[in-house]
This record gives sequence, C-alpha cells and structure tokens, in this order.
Amino acid sequence: MDFEEKTLKRQDIYKGAIIDLVVDDVQLPNDLGKAKREIVLHNGAVAVLAVTPEKKLLIVKQYRKAIEAVSYEIPAGKLEKGEKGFELEAAARELEEETAYAGDLKHLYDFYTALGFCNEKISLYLAENIKKVSNPRPQDEDELIELLELSYQECLDYIAQGKIVDAKTIIAIQYYAQKFGGDL
Amino acid sequence: MDFEEKTLKRQDIYKGAIIDLVVDDVQLPNDLGKAKREIVLHNGAVAVLAVTPEKKLLIVKQYRKAIEAVSYEIPAGKLEKGEKGFELEAAARELEEETAYAGDLKHLYDFYTALGFCNEKISLYLAENIKKVSNPRPQDEDELIELLELSYQECLDYIAQGKIVDAKTIIAIQYYAQKFGGDL
Repeated sequence: MDFEEKTLKRQDIYKGAIIDLVVDDVQLPNDLGKAKREIVLHNGAVAVLAVTPEKKLLIVKQYRKAIEAVSYEIPAGKLEKGEKGFELEAAARELEEETAYAGDLKHLYDFYTALGFCNEKISLYLAENIKKVSNPRPQDEDELIELLELSYQECLDYIAQGKIVDAKTIIAIQYYAQKFGGDL
Repeated sequence: MDFEEKTLKRQDIYKGAIIDLVVDDVQLPNDLGKAKREIVLHNGAVAVLAVTPEKKLLIVKQYRKAIEAVSYEIPAGKLEKGEKGFELEAAARELEEETAYAGDLKHLYDFYTALGFCNEKISLYLAENIKKVSNPRPQDEDELIELLELSYQECLDYIAQGKIVDAKTIIAIQYYAQKFGGDL
C-alpha cells in the first residue's frame, strides 16, 4: 500500500524567529482525492537529561507563554541556523547556558514532538559526571530561568502535581527510571 | 522571583482547521523589557496505549506530511470543538476508529508536546481487555492507516530503526516497559 502524500502546492503563511507556517495542498494516495496540511516548520532542538553525582536531575523552571504557566523541564534549546549535524555541541552549549554545568554527553534518541502538524525534532542526550563550569556562557537575554536539582522521587511528585507537563521531560524521567531504577 | 510574561498585544496570523497561529508581544518580568512569542494554538488531543491480551501494542502506520515520512504511532486524534472535558470519550472513539478495538480505558497522564511554542496537550490513556468491535466507526476520510500489533521487543526494534520517532508513542512504550516489564 502506498502512503505518500505528494505536494501539489505550498503556501507560505508566516516566517518567524522560531517557526514558519506553511499550508500544503496534497494529493492523497489510492485515489482518495486532495487535502490540505497545515505544517509548522521548526529547525529542531536538543535536550539534556543531566544527572549529578548524587543522582539528582537538573531541572530548569521557566515561564512558557504558549501555556500561560511556569513549567519545569530538562535543559533544552533550539538548534541555530546551520547547526544541524552539530546536535552534540548544541546540547553542551544549552546545558552550560541554562545550568552552568558541563559533563560527558551521550546521545539517547531523537523524536518528533508533534508530527501531526510540526517537524520539530528533538535530539535527547544524557549528561553524566557533570561539574560546575567556572565561567559559564551567559543565558539568553529574554530567558529567565531558575535551576533546580531534583531527586527522582521529587520529579514524580512534580508530575503528580502538574508542574512537570512537558513531553521531552517525561521521556527523560522515564528513561532515568529505566536506567537508574525507580518505579513510575 | 516573578516569571509571568504579560500579554501587551496579540496578533492573529492564521486560523486553520487544526491549528491557529498568533504572535504575542509580551512584557518580560523584572524589567527585562519586551519580547515577541510565536504561539501555535491547538485544541488538544488524546492518545491510547492499547495492549492486547497477548501483551502486544496496537500501533498504527500512517503518512505524516509534516515530516514527509511514514510514522508508526499509538492510536490518537485531536479533540473536536467542545470536546474538552470529554477526553475519555474521545480516546474511546479514536481507538475504535483507528483500530476497531474497544477496551477498558484508564487515564495515565497529560503532557504538552511542544510547549516552547505550542499549547497542544495530549491526554494519554491505557486500554486493557481490548476486543474487536463488530461494527466499528469508520476512519476519517483523509486518513489512510494500517494497523499493526507489535510485541514490546518489536517496538524497541522500530525505535532503533527510526520507524517509531513520535514523542507520545515513545512515552507510551516507556510506560509499558515500566508497567509490564522490559528494558528500554
């Protein structure tokens, strides 16, 4: 069975700093006719599950305008233009900028956050043997964040309390549970 | 420390079938000045980790135009207008439409897929004791999907092969590993 949807026309709706929006007219396979696909284009991102020698997880607190709430997440950031293929370096940068830590990074897996309408891909890394950096890179100007070091149990409490509601962070915590023990 | 970003102005860029796009001018806290926030508005969605009596996972194969590729995912679908608060019913409907199965549904947790720029919230359910429905609801007209029943090991293989690349599906498989055993 053929599944591919061929693009008949792409309409550019918006080009922004973080995302672009396009609407594609597509030809459905198997004579199913035509359809429209609204697609958010994103350059991709990296995220880091950073574990301290005391087996605590680095979690950053920040306000997220999209959900009009404070959110608790693993350190993460978007890829800059031309940075595809350099996800490891981007992960190290974001970890340092957001937490002032550096460590041994290992790639875990990549996933799309919302592939029904968006091409954002996140590359998830594990950081172990982390240490404070003496002169860390500064945070982004318009990012106000606070760093927490949470035990696994505290992470579960934050999930139960609705403080941790972010998909990439839940993936990272579940990975932690698998690797380091703990029931979710 | 105050984290809230107050909306100074909201600009409507696009209103679509699945998503809307707005750009907010916001006042940053702590005299940090102003910033723009590009925000994708989405009505929310449900997803179902459905497990057969043989402990296989129901996975649907479908083409995803946003990533120009076939994707393997747990059954899911967006909430219709006015369906907020009725996520359980929506989950049962999507399970039936996409797989022709029905079962005992239990809410697991909610998460935002991409809260840096989007308010899409997914409510994840577990379906157990599932059985084929005799006259299932038909699939959506412009959705072409194929149903697979995969063992946990096959799911891991699909992740390793890059066939399963979807965040909600990875969250569900990790949950399965925790609940029913298996290393991720």
